[in-house]
Amino acid sequence: MADYRDLDGKMIRLAKQSLKMCAAAGSGHPSSALSLAHLTTALMYRVMRYDPKDPWNTGSDRLILSEGHAVPIVYAAYCDLEGVAGTREKPVTLKFDDALTLREADSLLDGHPSPAVGFPFFDAATGSLGQGLSVAAGLAGAARLDGSDRKIYCIIGDGESREGQIWEAVDFVVDHKLTAVRMIFNCNGQGQSDYVSQQQSAELLEKKLLAFGCEVKVIDGHDWDEVITALEAAATDKPIAIIAKTVKGWGSTELQSKNYHGKPIKGELLDQAIADLDAIAAKLGASEDAQAFAASKPAKLSKKADGGRISAGSFAAAMKDAGLEKALEAKKLATRRAYGVALAALGAADERVVAMDGDVQGSTFANMFAAKYGDRYFEARIAEQNMISAAAGLAAADKIPFVSSFAKFLVRGYDQLELAVISRANIKLCGSHAGVSLAADGPSQMGLPDMAFIRSFAHAQNGDGTPAITAFCPSDAVSAFKLTELMANTQGVCYMRTHRPDVEFLYDEDDSFEVGGFKKLTDGGDLVIVGSGYMVHIAKAAMKILAKAGVSATLVDAYSMPLQTDGILELGSSCNGRILVVEDNYIGGIADEVTAAAARSGESITVESMFVRKVPKSARTPEETLAMVGLTVDDIAGAAQAMCK
Amino acid sequence: MADYRDLDGKMIRLAKQSLKMCAAAGSGHPSSALSLAHLTTALMYRVMRYDPKDPWNTGSDRLILSEGHAVPIVYAAYCDLEGVAGTREKPVTLKFDDALTLREADSLLDGHPSPAVGFPFFDAATGSLGQGLSVAAGLAGAARLDGSDRKIYCIIGDGESREGQIWEAVDFVVDHKLTAVRMIFNCNGQGQSDYVSQQQSAELLEKKLLAFGCEVKVIDGHDWDEVITALEAAATDKPIAIIAKTVKGWGSTELQSKNYHGKPIKGELLDQAIADLDAIAAKLGASEDAQAFAASKPAKLSKKADGGRISAGSFAAAMKDAGLEKALEAKKLATRRAYGVALAALGAADERVVAMDGDVQGSTFANMFAAKYGDRYFEARIAEQNMISAAAGLAAADKIPFVSSFAKFLVRGYDQLELAVISRANIKLCGSHAGVSLAADGPSQMGLPDMAFIRSFAHAQNGDGTPAITAFCPSDAVSAFKLTELMANTQGVCYMRTHRPDVEFLYDEDDSFEVGGFKKLTDGGDLVIVGSGYMVHIAKAAMKILAKAGVSATLVDAYSMPLQTDGILELGSSCNGRILVVEDNYIGGIADEVTAAAARSGESITVESMFVRKVPKSARTPEETLAMVGLTVDDIAGAAQAMCK
Repeated sequence: MADYRDLDGKMIRLAKQSLKMCAAAGSGHPSSALSLAHLTTALMYRVMRYDPKDPWNTGSDRLILSEGHAVPIVYAAYCDLEGVAGTREKPVTLKFDDALTLREADSLLDGHPSPAVGFPFFDAATGSLGQGLSVAAGLAGAARLDGSDRKIYCIIGDGESREGQIWEAVDFVVDHKLTAVRMIFNCNGQGQSDYVSQQQSAELLEKKLLAFGCEVKVIDGHDWDEVITALEAAATDKPIAIIAKTVKGWGSTELQSKNYHGKPIKGELLDQAIADLDAIAAKLGASEDAQAFAASKPAKLSKKADGGRISAGSFAAAMKDAGLEKALEAKKLATRRAYGVALAALGAADERVVAMDGDVQGSTFANMFAAKYGDRYFEARIAEQNMISAAAGLAAADKIPFVSSFAKFLVRGYDQLELAVISRANIKLCGSHAGVSLAADGPSQMGLPDMAFIRSFAHAQNGDGTPAITAFCPSDAVSAFKLTELMANTQGVCYMRTHRPDVEFLYDEDDSFEVGGFKKLTDGGDLVIVGSGYMVHIAKAAMKILAKAGVSATLVDAYSMPLQTDGILELGSSCNGRILVVEDNYIGGIADEVTAAAARSGESITVESMFVRKVPKSARTPEETLAMVGLTVDDIAGAAQAMCK
Repeated sequence: MADYRDLDGKMIRLAKQSLKMCAAAGSGHPSSALSLAHLTTALMYRVMRYDPKDPWNTGSDRLILSEGHAVPIVYAAYCDLEGVAGTREKPVTLKFDDALTLREADSLLDGHPSPAVGFPFFDAATGSLGQGLSVAAGLAGAARLDGSDRKIYCIIGDGESREGQIWEAVDFVVDHKLTAVRMIFNCNGQGQSDYVSQQQSAELLEKKLLAFGCEVKVIDGHDWDEVITALEAAATDKPIAIIAKTVKGWGSTELQSKNYHGKPIKGELLDQAIADLDAIAAKLGASEDAQAFAASKPAKLSKKADGGRISAGSFAAAMKDAGLEKALEAKKLATRRAYGVALAALGAADERVVAMDGDVQGSTFANMFAAKYGDRYFEARIAEQNMISAAAGLAAADKIPFVSSFAKFLVRGYDQLELAVISRANIKLCGSHAGVSLAADGPSQMGLPDMAFIRSFAHAQNGDGTPAITAFCPSDAVSAFKLTELMANTQGVCYMRTHRPDVEFLYDEDDSFEVGGFKKLTDGGDLVIVGSGYMVHIAKAAMKILAKAGVSATLVDAYSMPLQTDGILELGSSCNGRILVVEDNYIGGIADEVTAAAARSGESITVESMFVRKVPKSARTPEETLAMVGLTVDDIAGAAQAMCK
């Protein structure tokens, strides 16, 4: 039997530090951390091939802590290893006692793993449970594209495996043969409010994972031999899942005496727990001073992201490449299809561009990319949560993932999207069939609250002042093409919504578009009409009626959020202070961009908003659904005339 | 062998009608419908115990069509049976040819199942995939509480079973022994864009379902004997899952010739498909005129929902019942805890009240209900999607489900929430730990975009003019208690957000609260400060600084959306047209309620908004996280003073 006294020493040191960290923070999850004492120590000091001095090396093995609340022990290890945190520009070498800053306002050690806060050892923020395995899958997909043999270790809680997304991720891993992933289920048997369900017991997890097509290794998570053998096992054609039976609060009598989930211990209880651990160390003959780090340094990534601007080239050329000469001539195409044209062009321009879709590639037109760059296309099937988190994983390995589905179905992954925001992941979402113009399929397929949700992030800033989400809503094929290209070149989370119907071109090849921008399509004197996406066309048609009635309007296409509202208010001021905003979503989109700016300005501007004020139903044509929600050409003309009276 | 010529006749009639319906609509999913030809006919004409003339009888067996796009054949059957649709007040008896109105603007036959549009045979809107089994589980939970032996049949697509929520639902069904559910997996082997993955093959589905603890029956979905035997099988202690191997486009050579997902056939192709089906009928000796309906009528539900107002009783009494005398005396308690107090009181008052929580009952304080009414408490574990859809199922059987988790984690179920909205489900959500005052756990646990998402529905109306979602944001324990009671008595989807910290009482027992209401807490002359929830307390503290600086403010607690903004604008007008709104969420909540109203009014009112403008990180105290995002007492006082300069 091997001598593990060096690892024992480290493990005890980390366990004790985890307890002290949570005590110092006054919160945190020491009992969860202790259940990972052996697994974390084995991974970070022995098994993983990485260099704590270079956490940005995507060629190294990676660790995703899906049960993010157990993070103290990982921080303890990384600080013990004097690992580097912070940013590439401003790296910080951590010391052992820096771990005690856990959860402080200016600490890099956030309450849950967060690369954006300055802990790049992690590739993704976790804490909302069930998402880490998907991120790991994305990293593994990138590893394959990079020809890297790095492994992606992912630790998942047993209670956490109740989240359906875990099983979406397992399916995805098996489907795409992402055998670089090592799934490690930490079966400590306790959740927050109770023991875990029998459905999440080690026994049932084993059965489930076997049924899903994994190779399963059941181990004692506190036995070095079993732990290291399982972690170092080579995968065959099946992905490896390790079921580690562990003890919540391992090493501390007190922490094992009841459910201590999320509760730090202090004072005498803390002293006793430390004494418990010291006693174990003495029994094991372990010394905390042992040099246990034996991880080999990884090879550098040969293919380094160049970070240069990606060009989709000429719109006309891309249209011809896509066999859409007729549409180019007729100057009519759906924005969703132009997304596909642009995506294929971007794929040709840069190998970092990858794409995902959730079994609707023929509707979102992601198929135009998939057909040409199959190796860089990851079909996610009908599982949007996994898709979005996996995209965050691909982005963490310097890919630029474009992720599409119906705007409605992307709602399924809004929690995952928010975690991607917290991670500052460089992902690009495209939600198709937005608004009510989808018509016949009805409200279960219509993207209606998306603008409100996305806008809420458009005004939340990242540390560098950029929007947490940058949003785009193209009104025609040209702008859809150019905005897709702009997404590729806009760092961070971007969201674009496209529409189902074919619409006329409004722009030319040489028009340019920018984040937050808008376009003035006509000059009028009586009022400003602001629209976006499909509604620009409806508003444009309303202008004809208005012209006959002697009303002249300035028509604005507000294609991006956060919107540059100053310019729109200026236009409003020059049009008698009248602005009418029309949108085909529930309240909370561009209309509120304008009303919030107007109300803040204190200027004498009246803003009327037309949006979807009813839960719609099916109808056979877009005209009928628009009529249902009061957004027809006539409705808009009527509202504009009423404002001008 | 039994003689199935009557069922064959019906089945052919329904299959033909499904093809014609989709052709008439110009859209729809005929091939999916045909794969269900035998299953639907067997269920609706033979197996299910129900009365097509009384779809509102919750005592009858129910059918949840989780793969909602396959709905044409169900509509065809129901119209053939001259079933009743519409509303209780205005019932409509359908005729066979009414099926051909599918997807028309004024048709009760929506593109996907929708009880709210007027098809109460269904209990829930489906169409966003993977949700139906959870609804079925909720219905089965209600059946148990009602002492009813009704069965809940749920048809799930094979491709759809990629959605993790399906597996959350299977766990939930097994955990709670909801053996009234019959899961029917329709394995036709095709998704929208491709054949289904091997991971969703009948073979793997069988293995998965066995591993999850189901009794699995694999059948030929086009063989009457096998279909009826499986559907009529009695459950033991394990829930029954049927894997039906079917053919997409069954009966039509053309529809089987390639992937026809979601594509109707017309003209000659339609004629040929009809001829194919007629040929099959002739071969089988089947006649369409056969009287196949043999379903027995169900017993009426003995326990009828009375619909009366539910009282939580006196706040003081409920606090004492909960052992919170000290908090009552100290006049200080967290709103999340007051939710638990109210929930327990409501549980005592009315048996319709049921509760669910996702493994955080000790934090949301749903445990105060669970401890007393265990039979009416459904622990959903860490699986929020299933929880929300299951609540919709409970509501469909006249229960009043209260569903809690952290506001952040409820985001996980926003797609399900939207489907509940479309269903007009009577469910009550409570998202705890909203805003940044959670502090130490960091952004992965903070509810920040919730107000924007929820507000988008607050201004979308149901058919009867009520808000699609009514929102509440209590600022103290008294209002939290009363608003929880108000939720119980407000029909439809309600959402409440509560906060982590203990806060002082602002109200007395005899204060009353209403949908859309606000409370004026102080009278001032210089400006109006509007807040909600925890921020009311921060604003109140800022008032002291302002008073010293000689600024007098009117403080408004805007505790509900859609907000009655007229009254707030009036207050603003009487305060020099100055309104400052403060909220602890991302943009899109009450600030935009006020700015939208102000901008529309055309009056000279300036509205400044303070909200979370940064993606926050952890800190050890709420004061620190508030400082991080510019929402401290001083920040508010400063902004107010700047407005008054």
